[in-house]
Amino acid sequence: MSENQSRRSFLQNLGVGLGTTTAAFAVPSLVAVPEPPFKKDEKKLGVALVGLGSYAKNQLAVALENAKNCYLAAIVTGTPAKAEEWSKKYNLPKESVYNYQNFDEIAKNKAVDIIYVVLPNSLHPEFVIRAAKAGKHVMCEKPMANSVAECEAMIKACKDAGVQLGVGYRLHFEPFTQEVMRIGQKKEKGAVRFVQTNFGFTIGDPTQWRLKKAMAGGGPLMDVGIYCVQASRYVTGEEPLWVTAQFGPITDKERFKDVEESVSWQMQFPGGAMVNGFSSYKSNIEQLYVSTNDGWLQLSPAYSYGPLKGKTNDGDMKMPIVHHQTVMMEAICKEFLETGKFPSHIGGEEGKRDMKILMAIYEAAETGKKISLV
Amino acid sequence: MSENQSRRSFLQNLGVGLGTTTAAFAVPSLVAVPEPPFKKDEKKLGVALVGLGSYAKNQLAVALENAKNCYLAAIVTGTPAKAEEWSKKYNLPKESVYNYQNFDEIAKNKAVDIIYVVLPNSLHPEFVIRAAKAGKHVMCEKPMANSVAECEAMIKACKDAGVQLGVGYRLHFEPFTQEVMRIGQKKEKGAVRFVQTNFGFTIGDPTQWRLKKAMAGGGPLMDVGIYCVQASRYVTGEEPLWVTAQFGPITDKERFKDVEESVSWQMQFPGGAMVNGFSSYKSNIEQLYVSTNDGWLQLSPAYSYGPLKGKTNDGDMKMPIVHHQTVMMEAICKEFLETGKFPSHIGGEEGKRDMKILMAIYEAAETGKKISLV
Repeated sequence: MSENQSRRSFLQNLGVGLGTTTAAFAVPSLVAVPEPPFKKDEKKLGVALVGLGSYAKNQLAVALENAKNCYLAAIVTGTPAKAEEWSKKYNLPKESVYNYQNFDEIAKNKAVDIIYVVLPNSLHPEFVIRAAKAGKHVMCEKPMANSVAECEAMIKACKDAGVQLGVGYRLHFEPFTQEVMRIGQKKEKGAVRFVQTNFGFTIGDPTQWRLKKAMAGGGPLMDVGIYCVQASRYVTGEEPLWVTAQFGPITDKERFKDVEESVSWQMQFPGGAMVNGFSSYKSNIEQLYVSTNDGWLQLSPAYSYGPLKGKTNDGDMKMPIVHHQTVMMEAICKEFLETGKFPSHIGGEEGKRDMKILMAIYEAAETGKKISLV
Repeated sequence: MSENQSRRSFLQNLGVGLGTTTAAFAVPSLVAVPEPPFKKDEKKLGVALVGLGSYAKNQLAVALENAKNCYLAAIVTGTPAKAEEWSKKYNLPKESVYNYQNFDEIAKNKAVDIIYVVLPNSLHPEFVIRAAKAGKHVMCEKPMANSVAECEAMIKACKDAGVQLGVGYRLHFEPFTQEVMRIGQKKEKGAVRFVQTNFGFTIGDPTQWRLKKAMAGGGPLMDVGIYCVQASRYVTGEEPLWVTAQFGPITDKERFKDVEESVSWQMQFPGGAMVNGFSSYKSNIEQLYVSTNDGWLQLSPAYSYGPLKGKTNDGDMKMPIVHHQTVMMEAICKEFLETGKFPSHIGGEEGKRDMKILMAIYEAAETGKKISLV
């Protein structure tokens, strides 16, 4: 099956008419979006989860149970016991259960609209590219990959296949985070002057993949520091000019043979904001503090699965408490069903922007130099 | 009048017997402390304030009104109107009112036990040294001076004159701060792993001395960043191994022609703690957050005149609310009346330790290099 056929299968699967197409990138104009109003119940997008670790099990599967416009349509796992457990729980037909060898056959599965890659970081590029080649739209967990070059290859593969690519930046759909973005970017309390952003936790099992550089690409910066980098970008609505960074000491030699134990970094933004960031696998910390010209904002907890808690100089933030992954999946699928595209602010280019900064932080920490990002 | 005579006058003024003395440093053994228990009301130490700016007026004078064991005995000012106002308010005799020219005559003033220098930073060395030469014990506002060499000259002058030297580190006597020190240093919640410390405010009058490098020695780092440096030292009970630092951008060219607008810095401590610090004259921010192995501590407000507010992973810190400068003056005078010495943890050596770090932060920010402190 060609990439084009595969995309066509998908579009047919949407239940909308398909005209002729010449460019793989022409999806939006081809999708005859029912309007207005689009009745959500007419279509639920089928999602395949690739990798059934704890995030897939405890968060994404729950989201797919709750979401109104998508559902768990297939699974991809290397563990037969998980295949059995999930098939039973989600009533999945045999033909919608894949392993990593026969994964590419998913191209033929009309029930699958979106493939969500939840594997260790180093496997993101391979599986995102295979998913694109199977003609399926792709969601990829953060960090998008372990290098900028990988991000570029993934973006290109999805572009070539004419499929959408999104990164699992759930907080973009979370109300406290959205409020912080709004206040910061609209300068509702004046210009952002200083951002303090810390995220760390005490890591457990010393044998886990997160502690192996070849699989994780790095330590806490890749896993949780990325939230802090995101936060400084979405609060200011700008891209950093430069970064400096410092590794913390290794105090736990058993766990930190391969990746950093902690790292702090600093950035300056064009509007004048300064950022202090810190991430660690040995400190339990989770904060976003923003000092603006006329006030301040704070989220703490700021990045974990919630409920988040927010305050400003005007008092407690009153925002709805939501299940992050559910609102993310619903928003992405809603946008897609309406426009044929994933929301652009969580797309591959966004993942690549973060990756460029993460790599610059490592370079700064390794060389002791200020790394320009412009 | 010789230095020794001057010191003798002071001791006589204490109302205690004076034996023979050979070394200027022999004060403690000479002071026949009434004991036990020492009745505080028997003696109030006379304090002369040098420089009657807002800190002297709104904080130190209030402390001297409230304190049980000291009082305002003299003033030194270059402004006749202030001399008149204060003389009247505090019922000061004419001979206890000095200007900067006749200041040295204070040596003859038996009512004065301690001279407290509250002038702009650049004047600290001159007036501390003149106070020491006048045979008076000396308190000096923070930062102690504008260079390590000045600190050393001040320490030497006081040592040579056999007088005590203290730096106005009021927070060492403040209950929330003391609790944070205790928990951190005793490792009550495990080892300190990460310290986040920020202090900044939006500076007003663009013509004030704090914005002139020759007088202030620098910008917010000298004025408020010093509290953050202190905090990281008193929470860990250790001295930093190295520092890196970055200046923030100048967004206000009117005010920041001469000193930094903001600066961030990072430090590592021997026990493994990492520190992120930030100080600014354009951000209103005031926080201390400490992540320990088994929990966390937080003060916010952390450094201003109070009331401070503290929290830990166990809940709100319940500590008495005090007037910082009153408890500081009472504690220093109590220690002195009992032992003949100022508390050593707020002495000249402590001021010099901070100065060494502040200078290293500037060097790191200017050169972009990691500056070793060991």
